[in-house]
Amino acid sequence: MNISAARKKLTDLLGSSKVLADPDALEPYARDASHAGRYLPDLVVRAESAADVQQVLAVATENSVPVVPRGLGSGKSGGALAIHGGIVLSLEKMNRLREISRDDMLAVAEPGLITADLMSAVEKEGLFYPPDPNSLNMCSIGGNVAANAGGPRALKYGVTRAYVLGVEVVLPTGEIMKLGRRTIKGVTGYDLAGLIVGSEGTLGVITEVTLRLVPLPRAVETALVSFPDLDGASHALTAVLSAGIVPRTLELLDHHALDAVRAKTPGRFPENAGALIILETDAPSKERAFEELEKAASVCLEHRALDVLVAQDDAQREKIWEPRRVLSMTLTESAPKKMSEDIVVPRSKIPEMLRRVTAIAEKYKLRVATYGHAGDGNLHVNVLYDESSADRADRAIHEVMVATIDLRGTISGEHGIGLTKREFITLEQAPEVLELQRALKKTFDPHNILNPGKIFPARGVRE
Amino acid sequence: MNISAARKKLTDLLGSSKVLADPDALEPYARDASHAGRYLPDLVVRAESAADVQQVLAVATENSVPVVPRGLGSGKSGGALAIHGGIVLSLEKMNRLREISRDDMLAVAEPGLITADLMSAVEKEGLFYPPDPNSLNMCSIGGNVAANAGGPRALKYGVTRAYVLGVEVVLPTGEIMKLGRRTIKGVTGYDLAGLIVGSEGTLGVITEVTLRLVPLPRAVETALVSFPDLDGASHALTAVLSAGIVPRTLELLDHHALDAVRAKTPGRFPENAGALIILETDAPSKERAFEELEKAASVCLEHRALDVLVAQDDAQREKIWEPRRVLSMTLTESAPKKMSEDIVVPRSKIPEMLRRVTAIAEKYKLRVATYGHAGDGNLHVNVLYDESSADRADRAIHEVMVATIDLRGTISGEHGIGLTKREFITLEQAPEVLELQRALKKTFDPHNILNPGKIFPARGVRE
Repeated sequence: MNISAARKKLTDLLGSSKVLADPDALEPYARDASHAGRYLPDLVVRAESAADVQQVLAVATENSVPVVPRGLGSGKSGGALAIHGGIVLSLEKMNRLREISRDDMLAVAEPGLITADLMSAVEKEGLFYPPDPNSLNMCSIGGNVAANAGGPRALKYGVTRAYVLGVEVVLPTGEIMKLGRRTIKGVTGYDLAGLIVGSEGTLGVITEVTLRLVPLPRAVETALVSFPDLDGASHALTAVLSAGIVPRTLELLDHHALDAVRAKTPGRFPENAGALIILETDAPSKERAFEELEKAASVCLEHRALDVLVAQDDAQREKIWEPRRVLSMTLTESAPKKMSEDIVVPRSKIPEMLRRVTAIAEKYKLRVATYGHAGDGNLHVNVLYDESSADRADRAIHEVMVATIDLRGTISGEHGIGLTKREFITLEQAPEVLELQRALKKTFDPHNILNPGKIFPARGVRE
Repeated sequence: MNISAARKKLTDLLGSSKVLADPDALEPYARDASHAGRYLPDLVVRAESAADVQQVLAVATENSVPVVPRGLGSGKSGGALAIHGGIVLSLEKMNRLREISRDDMLAVAEPGLITADLMSAVEKEGLFYPPDPNSLNMCSIGGNVAANAGGPRALKYGVTRAYVLGVEVVLPTGEIMKLGRRTIKGVTGYDLAGLIVGSEGTLGVITEVTLRLVPLPRAVETALVSFPDLDGASHALTAVLSAGIVPRTLELLDHHALDAVRAKTPGRFPENAGALIILETDAPSKERAFEELEKAASVCLEHRALDVLVAQDDAQREKIWEPRRVLSMTLTESAPKKMSEDIVVPRSKIPEMLRRVTAIAEKYKLRVATYGHAGDGNLHVNVLYDESSADRADRAIHEVMVATIDLRGTISGEHGIGLTKREFITLEQAPEVLELQRALKKTFDPHNILNPGKIFPARGVRE
């Protein structure tokens, strides 16, 4: 790696304002929202165009310097960390919304656009971009595509993948590729745009995305449903789904999660609740949204729900959601350390998985807060620990992964594998499946300069 | 290619009942539902397990024999034709439905299962598999996955891709790969299952599919909406969608299509109609399905619809759909020859595309019947011709493709590229995008034995 040559060349080519090398300027790019630690890059380049991205990749290839693409650094699996040094290629300046087409029901955006900004812009046109990662105010749409981000509404609307029609990417070898299409359907050639979605910045650098939109639902109804305990809530949840009701969210919070919120914002959640579900429906009319909410709520009441509080206006709705959106940070503040997992089990296995998590927490004497998009089986399991319990925390996380696979689940629902889970992937995927993926990676990136060391376990460290 | 050695080896390994070599026995495998002609394979192997598939691929590799996977031969782009001879690997005997899980809302099927059989089995459990290619009574689910099949309901429910959770495939190099997952969400590693969907039997042989199901809608309403002409129908259709209404189907039929049906089954369609839309809605209750139908119908009536006939029962519904389902065959019978295309344009370009098709038909003095899933911009353009007009038909098809790309569309919505469109793909995709796909193909199939010559244009024949 010849970083000084790369720095000089890039400064000449792009101008010094785009190329950061001062340690203070690099520091904000040394971490992401994971617990994976600090990795100071050698250089940060803030690209302003696909042509800039091409230059960075060409210079990096010439000088054998790793390049780590980065949106806004909100990732939870260490995907944007420069673990081998080199260049962090930030897309934060490429944040324009290039087009909204009402007629074709699509939007074209640059990767650095904040997801919430995209959402509010299309909603003004009567359109809807459903995927809603809880970090939506601080994450970028390019990052969402790279991670195939989910969110509460994925239960009804599906994840980011379902909304990506096309992507423009720059390959590590320098070519700009227009992949996918502008139409709703299309089967011309291999689904390369789909392969880029969720590839965590290892196959190409996303420089533009074309997103499918849907009509904006006119009415939303939200309720907070309280339960005496987690087991009650998890059975109610599967009963709602089995009744053929598909609300737009069924968010679950266990008592550790509730306690953390109560400690920070007293009075926000009912005192008698040992677990909560945030139930939300949407529809073209208020009557229909409410009718569906009522149906789901009555199934909950038949399954040991204590109470159902329906938001009467947007302010009350926001009061329900706000603690959920910041829950990850609230938990981080509530303990010296936290490891946040993101598993998924088949729908019918939700109660069993929750029982196993409780048993693992008891076994290792740890506080484990579980919450998440339980309706689709996606649970965020947060192990809270300190220096003295770090070993137990590691073992607990490992057992959570093993239990997930035992119940035929997957180790990541929406956060990705990145750095923090790369050693766990062998629990889920057979060696030949990993080899095939490594071969694909090599096809896209023959010199392994793009986000090296992510997704796949370090060689020789197989469990 | 050493076909006699391959034949001997496969007969030894699999038994003679699975290996066909008699010309009469081979004949049914020489054609598919395309107009691409007759290609007699040297051998047909009817696999009964993934292990059989492995054997075939191993022997084929050893003897440099091409292998063409085949479901039930209903494909419309020549994808299942043995254009270089060799082995047709039929999956028709692997037709079991291995599992339906009501709790996890999924089904696990072998590739040869007929799509309609899958549908009726899951519907008995109160579940729904939405993708409905019109060939559903004679196509296989493995073929649907290989082609990423669509159908009328894709407008509301999306195409096959949206329902594939996991696939088991045998790679040309012989490994059995379990790709994807059993959960609704999941982002562990690259989306290899998604890459197999729509890869037209060129990357691996599908031996099992795991499919997501949804709750069965309890009520369906169907109406036949007649218009004086195609232009009226196409504007009504975009108006319905712009109003934020998403029926489950908006099928369009032009007057050539209507005439062919009328010639075969008089009295089926209103005499004064110059174009028709089959409008269908579904919902959890009859009231809601009807309410949505009414809304869409009134938008049509505001846009020059002549009449709206609502089916009063399932028999009447079937009377509306039956001619649509067999329309491709009816048109084939109505002319000496037919070329059927499958283009998609962005939603707002539907009226313009229909005008261009009419102009092309007039220019070349050809009968061109257009129908299809116009709600999502997917139009089946059928050029009817005879020996004397074959040249004009070729030129007309070429102009249809050029117009599609000019309107930012795609040359295939659901039939695939296969053999019949491989020379057109260069109109849509840049050379570097094709090179990347060829490199991917090579990663999966280094000896190019699996379905060679499909999707990509023959080298040196670039337009």
